[in-house]
Amino acid sequence: MSETDSRIQIISLGGLGEIGKNMTAIRYEDNIIVIDAGLMFPEEELLGIDVVIPDITYLVENKEKVKAILLTHGHEDHVGGLPYVLREIDVPVYGSKLTLGIVEGKLKEQSIDGVRLNVVRPREFRKIGPFDIEFFRVSHSIPDAMGIAIHTPLGIILHTGDIKLDQTPVDGEVVDFRKLAELGEKGVLVLLSDSTNADKPGFTMSEKVVGNTFDDLFGRCEGRIILTTFASNVHRIQQVISTANKYGRKVAIVGRSMVNNVKISNELGYMNIPEGILIEQEEINHYAANQIVVVTTGSQGEPMSALTRMATADHRWVGIVPGDTVIISASPVPGNEKLVAKTVDLLFRQGAEVIYEKSMGVHVSGHASQEELKILLNLIRPRYFIPVHGEYRHLMKHAKLAESLGIPRARIFVADNGQIIEVGRKKASIAGEVASGKILVDGLGVGDVGNIVLRDRKQLSQDGIMIVVVTIQKENTEVVAGPDIVTRGFVYVRESEQLIEDAKERVREAMDICARKRITEWAVIKTQIRERLGKHLFEKTGRRPMILPIIMEI
Amino acid sequence: MSETDSRIQIISLGGLGEIGKNMTAIRYEDNIIVIDAGLMFPEEELLGIDVVIPDITYLVENKEKVKAILLTHGHEDHVGGLPYVLREIDVPVYGSKLTLGIVEGKLKEQSIDGVRLNVVRPREFRKIGPFDIEFFRVSHSIPDAMGIAIHTPLGIILHTGDIKLDQTPVDGEVVDFRKLAELGEKGVLVLLSDSTNADKPGFTMSEKVVGNTFDDLFGRCEGRIILTTFASNVHRIQQVISTANKYGRKVAIVGRSMVNNVKISNELGYMNIPEGILIEQEEINHYAANQIVVVTTGSQGEPMSALTRMATADHRWVGIVPGDTVIISASPVPGNEKLVAKTVDLLFRQGAEVIYEKSMGVHVSGHASQEELKILLNLIRPRYFIPVHGEYRHLMKHAKLAESLGIPRARIFVADNGQIIEVGRKKASIAGEVASGKILVDGLGVGDVGNIVLRDRKQLSQDGIMIVVVTIQKENTEVVAGPDIVTRGFVYVRESEQLIEDAKERVREAMDICARKRITEWAVIKTQIRERLGKHLFEKTGRRPMILPIIMEI
Repeated sequence: MSETDSRIQIISLGGLGEIGKNMTAIRYEDNIIVIDAGLMFPEEELLGIDVVIPDITYLVENKEKVKAILLTHGHEDHVGGLPYVLREIDVPVYGSKLTLGIVEGKLKEQSIDGVRLNVVRPREFRKIGPFDIEFFRVSHSIPDAMGIAIHTPLGIILHTGDIKLDQTPVDGEVVDFRKLAELGEKGVLVLLSDSTNADKPGFTMSEKVVGNTFDDLFGRCEGRIILTTFASNVHRIQQVISTANKYGRKVAIVGRSMVNNVKISNELGYMNIPEGILIEQEEINHYAANQIVVVTTGSQGEPMSALTRMATADHRWVGIVPGDTVIISASPVPGNEKLVAKTVDLLFRQGAEVIYEKSMGVHVSGHASQEELKILLNLIRPRYFIPVHGEYRHLMKHAKLAESLGIPRARIFVADNGQIIEVGRKKASIAGEVASGKILVDGLGVGDVGNIVLRDRKQLSQDGIMIVVVTIQKENTEVVAGPDIVTRGFVYVRESEQLIEDAKERVREAMDICARKRITEWAVIKTQIRERLGKHLFEKTGRRPMILPIIMEI
Repeated sequence: MSETDSRIQIISLGGLGEIGKNMTAIRYEDNIIVIDAGLMFPEEELLGIDVVIPDITYLVENKEKVKAILLTHGHEDHVGGLPYVLREIDVPVYGSKLTLGIVEGKLKEQSIDGVRLNVVRPREFRKIGPFDIEFFRVSHSIPDAMGIAIHTPLGIILHTGDIKLDQTPVDGEVVDFRKLAELGEKGVLVLLSDSTNADKPGFTMSEKVVGNTFDDLFGRCEGRIILTTFASNVHRIQQVISTANKYGRKVAIVGRSMVNNVKISNELGYMNIPEGILIEQEEINHYAANQIVVVTTGSQGEPMSALTRMATADHRWVGIVPGDTVIISASPVPGNEKLVAKTVDLLFRQGAEVIYEKSMGVHVSGHASQEELKILLNLIRPRYFIPVHGEYRHLMKHAKLAESLGIPRARIFVADNGQIIEVGRKKASIAGEVASGKILVDGLGVGDVGNIVLRDRKQLSQDGIMIVVVTIQKENTEVVAGPDIVTRGFVYVRESEQLIEDAKERVREAMDICARKRITEWAVIKTQIRERLGKHLFEKTGRRPMILPIIMEI
């Protein structure tokens, strides 16, 4: 392939048209680099599903070409799919110290050994195949997040990762503006940029703003303070600890993931925890109310989380009492609004004062809003622009922002997962598609639950099931036992005797008709039963349970 | 009972600790007046449930004492439960012209005849038993809404209904401030006031503000405009029609409930529709893009609604084309956020420009925010205050607002549905409780689906069901057919043959064990099967389907 013919292919296997399971493959000739390997929590209609991961058929089929997985930061939607990927492909992983610290814990949990984890630092270069890979600092809602610039023979591909332009980050690690400017000046061929907040006008407030609010609140509170946030938001937790320290309060960390995150972050040097400030949850009651801050999981109202258990007076160590102030330092992830609201209500019922309103300034987003996105676009001025990390409307809004800054629409690609964006020095286009989609993880099964199973779960969840069993004599198809009827999730059986009796009668009728018509194929008999019974049940109850006829033969 | 002993009892059967199914009973001696009879749409965990209505056992048991149902306005959460109530209790209904117009339609749909509907107008009095009942104008997101003052022998009970203090309502019908002041001056014994937005700081913007936004948008749009809002928001629809008229566009109303509401409101004189501006949906394509506004149902992303069908290119008359502007003039009701977002994404994918962001000013709430609530409280200065219409946190916030204005905490009742708030001239207290709760409507069944059925639906929805059937000989419990296994919603059967075979083997083992131990009780055998099989399936799949052993006897 002559160099004028060569192309870069950019293929997102996740993160386009969705928030979650971010994963982008970048291919040049026989070399593939993958950025991130995230998972996604299932939408409501994916009944019974635990997590969703990207379809990586493309990577598995090109196993020997995949040279590295690069991680931007340690959030689940960027690293949560890694264990599943690494079971299929043996490939080295690159990321920051904290990111890999988090990943190590995950791999251990899932008993995956021997993974080649390579710590990289901002402004470090790594040569991988034909790529020179450069990492740079960005701010986000987890420490040690990085963007990635991939220097390819055709030009620079720049991926922001998740990013906000926090001018006063808690750890002082400001976005590497000068690097972005330098790359922009050199000329960036393709920019892939975070679209999560592309429909939010203005600027995202600095994390420090939340620290100021904490200072106000802690200064005024006379009782215990119980604060919940995302377990990975280490800077938020740091700010709680620092403010607690200022006001002479001890801090108890509660909830498994919160404890783990603080432990890892502290061990790796990402936190600054004053000597003696942390106490165990068992010790909370040894202190006066105004000497305590509890930092806990449960910011999304998760039913089994520590905060939910406190709210339902079901937590072993922390019972809510009047005088407690609970601070919800997080906003609900879309879909969790009602769970969070329910938790707030329960906390109020326990007598707590609860600070949860957006207007209270106890939370800021980790993603850049429109004005920040414009700054990024203007700094970098890429030849081609691919908005990533967002539902379709976010990608579209981001595309429109770019257009409003003068980037021609024809050079902006609002793409779908799996689409191959083929980029040359002078032109770029969608050039086909690879397999992509949602792989559903349910229990131990990865990808074995599909539409049929989900459709059945849906029907079962709405109107339940009616099972009809009949035992017949093989030779003469005479009914020797039944019909018996068992239902679940359809009606309250003890008050529905007549309905069940009538249903049996309908089954007998259906079988009589078949007998008279000399129909002996089971499938036809079953259909008869289903139809006759279904009609009857709908007339009587207005419901359409799944009807499952089972014929036993002796 | 001497007058000094007499008490008023105020009992909410719905609307406390929840948004929806509003209903409050006010009792004096043997006279009960009911304010509103709403329904509620089921929360997600109420699988398969269609609507939720209040438990009216208390009213049914005191049937002969119930003198009237008074309606504040025509929203579902205030009138939607009426048909169910009227099937149990024959009682006259009072409400404004539009409210009763909407109710009439509902009663007709449900074939309920002979209801005594009494139209009342603002500032009208009705004497019902010992009560003098006075209706007064309030603004809300539906026209002809009223608050109610009940003059009792002990003092005035004032119920705001749903209210906002819109200073520039579309129909010019401003909240009757002078009446509120007059009542306050006379002395209000108990105020019941709308808490829906009690956690929102500031003022709720006027409905007119949305009209101004429409004017801006319509002035700039060159393609078709497709706008969705709540079907009952007649003033919103009026503003669309007026703006369309200004810019020389025709208006097509699409979606059954939208068509019905416009029809009723127009017939009853609540709209001002310029001659010839309305066209049928079939005619839309007879006009140029810039001559068309479509007003449609579907603002909540409801799967079967007109807008959703447009978004999925499945609507008979309206297909979305590039150049169309879709305006989502509503905010998602909590729980509908993801459905709305999905619809917006689909519309973008069809090529539309979609205006959905809060910051665009295309929607305002119909409920008073904190500053308005304070004005109401200061105008009325009730002796006792009962925040109503809100989840627990809203009631608490409203209570705190009242406290901040100097109303003593002991005179504020943050109550639960069913609690009897007993009020005398000089004191008030919670004095017991009546039956209350959620009555679930599923198909034709009212109240027959309870926890057992719901728990089964939940389990079925998560991991499906495995049915095990065995036919045995009565005399010797010998297995003559089976075990047969059927599953639904558990695994993809065609790829799980081994799993099913192994499961059968586990069932045989369980039965062998029982045989050896001479266990013959079916219940014990079934438990054996369930446990053995359950353990096996969890080990193999990480899932816990419902296991349903059925033993047939011949």
